[in-house]
Amino acid sequence: MRTTENQLLVIFGASGDLTARKLVPALYKLYQEKHLPEHFAVLGVARSFMTDEQFRKRVALESKHIKDSDEFIAQFSEKLFYQDLGDSYDVSYMELNERLQDLNTAYQTDNNFIFYLSTPPSLFEPIAKNLTAQGLNDEREGWKRLIIEKPFGYSLDTAQSLNNDLHRYFKEKQIYRIDHYLGKETVQNILVTRFANSIFEPLWNRSYIHHVEITNAESDGVESRGGYYDKSGALRDMFQSHLLQLVALIVMEPPLSADPEEIRNEKLKALKSLRLMTDPEVLEQNTIRGQYLASEIDGERVNGYREEEDVDPDSTTETYAAVKFYVDNWRWADVPFYVRTAKRMPTKVTEVVIHFKSPHHQIFKNSNINKDNKLVIRIQPDEGILVKFGVKVPGQGFKVERGNLDFYYSSLGDTHIMEAYERLLLDAMQGDATLYARADEVEAAWRFTDPILEYWKEGNARIYGYSAGVWGPEHADELIEGKGQWRNPGAHLADDPGYCVIE
Amino acid sequence: MRTTENQLLVIFGASGDLTARKLVPALYKLYQEKHLPEHFAVLGVARSFMTDEQFRKRVALESKHIKDSDEFIAQFSEKLFYQDLGDSYDVSYMELNERLQDLNTAYQTDNNFIFYLSTPPSLFEPIAKNLTAQGLNDEREGWKRLIIEKPFGYSLDTAQSLNNDLHRYFKEKQIYRIDHYLGKETVQNILVTRFANSIFEPLWNRSYIHHVEITNAESDGVESRGGYYDKSGALRDMFQSHLLQLVALIVMEPPLSADPEEIRNEKLKALKSLRLMTDPEVLEQNTIRGQYLASEIDGERVNGYREEEDVDPDSTTETYAAVKFYVDNWRWADVPFYVRTAKRMPTKVTEVVIHFKSPHHQIFKNSNINKDNKLVIRIQPDEGILVKFGVKVPGQGFKVERGNLDFYYSSLGDTHIMEAYERLLLDAMQGDATLYARADEVEAAWRFTDPILEYWKEGNARIYGYSAGVWGPEHADELIEGKGQWRNPGAHLADDPGYCVIE
Repeated sequence: MRTTENQLLVIFGASGDLTARKLVPALYKLYQEKHLPEHFAVLGVARSFMTDEQFRKRVALESKHIKDSDEFIAQFSEKLFYQDLGDSYDVSYMELNERLQDLNTAYQTDNNFIFYLSTPPSLFEPIAKNLTAQGLNDEREGWKRLIIEKPFGYSLDTAQSLNNDLHRYFKEKQIYRIDHYLGKETVQNILVTRFANSIFEPLWNRSYIHHVEITNAESDGVESRGGYYDKSGALRDMFQSHLLQLVALIVMEPPLSADPEEIRNEKLKALKSLRLMTDPEVLEQNTIRGQYLASEIDGERVNGYREEEDVDPDSTTETYAAVKFYVDNWRWADVPFYVRTAKRMPTKVTEVVIHFKSPHHQIFKNSNINKDNKLVIRIQPDEGILVKFGVKVPGQGFKVERGNLDFYYSSLGDTHIMEAYERLLLDAMQGDATLYARADEVEAAWRFTDPILEYWKEGNARIYGYSAGVWGPEHADELIEGKGQWRNPGAHLADDPGYCVIE
Repeated sequence: MRTTENQLLVIFGASGDLTARKLVPALYKLYQEKHLPEHFAVLGVARSFMTDEQFRKRVALESKHIKDSDEFIAQFSEKLFYQDLGDSYDVSYMELNERLQDLNTAYQTDNNFIFYLSTPPSLFEPIAKNLTAQGLNDEREGWKRLIIEKPFGYSLDTAQSLNNDLHRYFKEKQIYRIDHYLGKETVQNILVTRFANSIFEPLWNRSYIHHVEITNAESDGVESRGGYYDKSGALRDMFQSHLLQLVALIVMEPPLSADPEEIRNEKLKALKSLRLMTDPEVLEQNTIRGQYLASEIDGERVNGYREEEDVDPDSTTETYAAVKFYVDNWRWADVPFYVRTAKRMPTKVTEVVIHFKSPHHQIFKNSNINKDNKLVIRIQPDEGILVKFGVKVPGQGFKVERGNLDFYYSSLGDTHIMEAYERLLLDAMQGDATLYARADEVEAAWRFTDPILEYWKEGNARIYGYSAGVWGPEHADELIEGKGQWRNPGAHLADDPGYCVIE
């Protein structure tokens, strides 16, 4: 077991939603499970003025459903403090530093500070700079770490310049770029499935795999996030970060060891092996974007994307993105990868499907292509692994039908499965960066995504409309050659499924 | 679909247990499911005198629990007839032939006759000979088939001479040697699992498989079968026939097609590839025999084998047999096979376990040998397939624990799964010999089993005693090198598990 050293956690953007909804509950859970070090405190930081008590109340509100005794909750609450930042950076950060030193002394946190930047990306650089001005990047006494929330960059350029900015003040090994997908057990289990077993890896290559499919479907629309989303879109919001991280775990070669740097080295190699698509014709043929339309679900009208709050009525931002690509390395040559992410889908699901090739000699004549073997890795919900294989239909002869080999993560019993934020916070507190994205990984993911974003921005690609509750534009099936169509878990929900070309 | 031609089924030994308990119920089920041809009749034959009505009553008794209307049952019953055989073969078979011709005419069964020999093996040859004397082996008008119940021979010699005898009267393609294990869906599913899927066969060889284990455990003792069993023993009763057939299905190369002869050719090759053990030292080290002892289960005393009815009090017949052997071919070189069969085990189970090698590079340091991948093919009960593989323990780091991928045959829904006899009878009625053992297969199985029987008979090998409700002599674990022990599904049941050396 790694140890968690005494430390002080500083949350920038502490008045925001994430702090109350995710970070403080995650910290409380760590406290409950006795994962926090003996000497520990949290300092929330934001522009607005609050007393410590007000801050505690604000974040405690969300923990109402917890069943612990008031006393126990109060004990945790006493570790929470708040400091507001004024208009002048110089003054504010000096005051902040003083407060930190006081808390550090009072709580014996050994000069170990984590700065969690739950702020708009535009503030990442100024915060790093101002912390540095106060000497708060200096590791001669105690360590200093910086956790950066996504999105990390808006393009390759912006990500590179953000990395450059941060590296001016903090070393790469001090920087933890959060990708909450990597905090999911099922995502980490991809590594164990592949490399702690002897039966999967021999099949994990172009000789046996026909194609790989990754689906991230959300049933919701953009909800209250229209303003953010309209500037971002599905590719930036999900594909460049979470889904390419998934791709990296599927594609990567076995690492030398489970050491964080070894794993990240292999993930980087994987991301670098994705074949860049820059030719307009290639981009046209291998990418599809869509936007959800106003439609009815169970008789109730739901907004089209362009009608959503804070969304430009002429927006060309994609709520559906499907990308086909190849991986240029020895293992994966000629194996197509199909990755899609979208909102307003029939169901909420994230899964990786490894489609194996057909048996190369047909001994049982009535087998057909639908019975090809599949390995389904369910990231959410119903976390687990599913192998679809052919079994004999009871009765004479050798008729083959589909059987399922099932593993549900829930079958492991009542082990507490950490929430992504809980796990990621604890890892950073212990200095384990395995589940955080390294600068070069993030840039490699942007390098692959950038040309698609560029091509779409130039208005060359069509935007397909799709009704809420269908599996996106029907044209997306055309991406998948030979095998016909995407695997669509769950049923169609829309009363009147419809498709069209928007522009 | 194959068609079932009009035919007459003649059961020799019709007054016996098997006819009432298995054959007639199986025929009734086929009738229910409309698998019987339009023109069909059954003629029971035995020494004792009965009228058709008495025979119908005798076998109908056992079908009491059937829920069909009396009328429907009566309709089936009307297809049943009986003929007794007198002391003189010549007269009896002439009368039998006349009866057959009458029934053939009355029931328009097109001279297609199946002779089912549910008799002691000593009668196989005389029956075949007498049928031939009446021209009832002649296929110029209608086909003639012979179904032979096990045991087929008592040794290689006796099996060969039985084959020779039968071949004097019937052609090999007219002879159907029953092995009711091959009638089981789960046994046939081994072929489908291996050859209708692309994910198993690449792993199905010495590169990935560490060893193969087959367990056939019965919780009962010999019950009322002491007289038969004491002359036979576990090796003859189960190993030479059923278990070596299972071995053949696991070992065989992919057949050219699902054609019966192609499959049997490959099974024969498989059986011929088992490395013969003839050296006494090799036999000593690779075989273990045992006998169950008097013991207590749940406070109740159960007989030891030597106390059972009709068993010699000094019997050296084995009720437990474990054999380790190798397969001398390209695919299986150096992969040990461990096969055991026994009575008075803690539970009733038959399963094949493919033990895969450990991952060749340990990335996650805390993995251990118990987490090696296994493919368990459950023949009975809970028919299905189970893959044991490593999954990540929720929480930090990469701890690995055992997860199960499960497939239960029952999940296929309410498809009627034919009983072995039902399936085998229908196959023979349709002329499909896939699930019947061919002469050369049977001889190959005896060729492998004979030297073990010889070695044991000579009294060289120890006989280990074991308590009812334990997994046989503990010394059996010593057979399994390196990996330690047999996989023992279920728990110990005996109140006082004990082992000893009997002689």
